[in-house]
Amino acid sequence: MAAADPRIEAVLRQTDTVQNNRHYRDRHQLFYVEGIRGFVQAVDTGFTIKRILFSDKLLINPVARKLVRQQRRAGVATVNLSPEAFRRIATHKRASGVAALIQQQWHDLSATDANQSLCWTLLDSVRSPGNLGTLIRTSAAIGGAGFILVGNSVDPYAPSVLRSAMGASFHQAFVRTDWASLRTWIAERDRPVIGASPGGSVPLHALPQLATAPLLVLGEERQGLSRRQSDLCKTLVRIPMQPGADSLNLGVAGGLFLYEIRRQRAGP
Amino acid sequence: MAAADPRIEAVLRQTDTVQNNRHYRDRHQLFYVEGIRGFVQAVDTGFTIKRILFSDKLLINPVARKLVRQQRRAGVATVNLSPEAFRRIATHKRASGVAALIQQQWHDLSATDANQSLCWTLLDSVRSPGNLGTLIRTSAAIGGAGFILVGNSVDPYAPSVLRSAMGASFHQAFVRTDWASLRTWIAERDRPVIGASPGGSVPLHALPQLATAPLLVLGEERQGLSRRQSDLCKTLVRIPMQPGADSLNLGVAGGLFLYEIRRQRAGP
Repeated sequence: MAAADPRIEAVLRQTDTVQNNRHYRDRHQLFYVEGIRGFVQAVDTGFTIKRILFSDKLLINPVARKLVRQQRRAGVATVNLSPEAFRRIATHKRASGVAALIQQQWHDLSATDANQSLCWTLLDSVRSPGNLGTLIRTSAAIGGAGFILVGNSVDPYAPSVLRSAMGASFHQAFVRTDWASLRTWIAERDRPVIGASPGGSVPLHALPQLATAPLLVLGEERQGLSRRQSDLCKTLVRIPMQPGADSLNLGVAGGLFLYEIRRQRAGP
Repeated sequence: MAAADPRIEAVLRQTDTVQNNRHYRDRHQLFYVEGIRGFVQAVDTGFTIKRILFSDKLLINPVARKLVRQQRRAGVATVNLSPEAFRRIATHKRASGVAALIQQQWHDLSATDANQSLCWTLLDSVRSPGNLGTLIRTSAAIGGAGFILVGNSVDPYAPSVLRSAMGASFHQAFVRTDWASLRTWIAERDRPVIGASPGGSVPLHALPQLATAPLLVLGEERQGLSRRQSDLCKTLVRIPMQPGADSLNLGVAGGLFLYEIRRQRAGP
C-alpha cells in the first residue's frame, strides 16, 4: 500500500465529516452525493458542485466521466482517488466511482409563491430518514413544490434521507423557518392548511375544495401532529381505517394525502 | 458473571437461529416476536406460542406479566432470562423483557374465499423488508385479506418484516403457492387481477368497477412486474406522475392502490 498522501487524507476526512456531522453540514451548507445518477442529476439541476471525488479506475460510465472532465475544466475541484480510498468514503454497496460535495440550496419563505405550486408539505419533526426521503420522492412525483421545515430538527440533506429520496431531492425546494414567521406567512397569504390526523373530522376522500395550493401538515411518526402544528390547521383530515388498525407508515400516509391533493388540483 | 447455564445457552442459540436463519425458520415453521405489543397481539389473535423468553427483572408491564403467567399455566414453555441474557437476543433498542417463538400460520389457496374479502395482494419478490412490512401494515389498515406469495422468495415472518409491519402481520392471512396453482385458482374463480405498472393503460383513479375482490399484483422495487406477474393481469394500472419523475417507493405505490380499492369497494 502506498504511503498516505496528506492532501487525500484531508479530503477523505472532510467527506466523512460532511456525511456524519450534522453541525458541520449545516455550518458549511454542504451535502454528500454518491453514485452516477445522483451526481448527474445534481449537475443537471444546477446545484453548485464544490468538490468531485472520483476514482478513474472505478468510474467506467462514459457520461459521468465526461461530466467530471467538464466540471474540472469549469473550475470545480476534482480529486482522483484510488479504488481503496474511494471505498473508504463510499456508502453504497457497489462503489460507482463518483461522489461529490455539493452546496445546499435553501429558499426564503417570503419568496415562496404558493400560488404557482401544487402544494407544500410542512414538517417539524420526522423520526425516520427513510420516511422523509420517501415523502420527498412522492412530493416530487406529484409535482409538489417542496418542504417547509419549522425549527432545526429535520435535515433533508442527511445522506440517508438523500438516498431514500432517490434523486427527488434535486427537484424539491426546501425552506427553513420558525413558527412566528410561518404564522405570519400563512395569515398574509390566506393559505389553506390541512393537517393529517387520525382524529380529524374530515375523511381523506372528502377533502374540501382547494382554491389555492394547500400546506399539508404531517406530524411525527409516533406522536402525530404537535400542538403548534395542529394550531395552524384549518382542517384536520383522517385516513379511513379498519376498526382495530391504528396507524399507517408516515411515508404511506403522506403519499395518500399528496395524491389526493394532486387528484383534486391536477385531475386524474 | 454467573457460569453459563447450558439449557439457557441452548435456548439463546435457538432464538438467534430463528431470527437469522430463513431455512431453519421455514423448516420449523417458527417466527420471533419481541416487545409487549407484539407478544400481546400474538396471544390475542390466537397464534400458538411455542416458547416465551422473558426477563423477570426487565418486564414491568403488569398486563404482559399476567399474560406470561397465564401462558405458563396453560403449558407454554417459558424461560426466565437475566437482563444480560435477554439483551443478547433483543433486537429492539430498549429491552422490553418479553419475546416469544411463535408458530407460523399459513392458509391454503384452495380454502381462500376471495369473495368475502376486500382484496388480496400478490407478490413474488420484494427487495426491502421495510417495504414488505409497510405493505402488510397498509393492507391490514384497509381490511385487506392478506398476501398470496408465489414461490419461496418472500418471507413475511422475517424479523425485519414483522418489525416494520408493527403488529399488522397478526391480522393478515398468508398463502404460499406456485404459478400453476395460482393460474387455476384465478381462472376457476374468475378473479379480477390488477397489476401496478408505470406503463399501465388505466390511471389509478379510473380503476374499473370491481364486482368482486381483486387480486392486486405488485412487482419488485426496481424491476417492476415480472413477466409471469403481468401475464396474470387483466388490467395494468399506472399511478399518474409528473413528467421527469420516474418512480415511487413500493410501500407508497402499494398503499395508493390498496386505498383506491378500499374506496371503491367500501366507500369513503
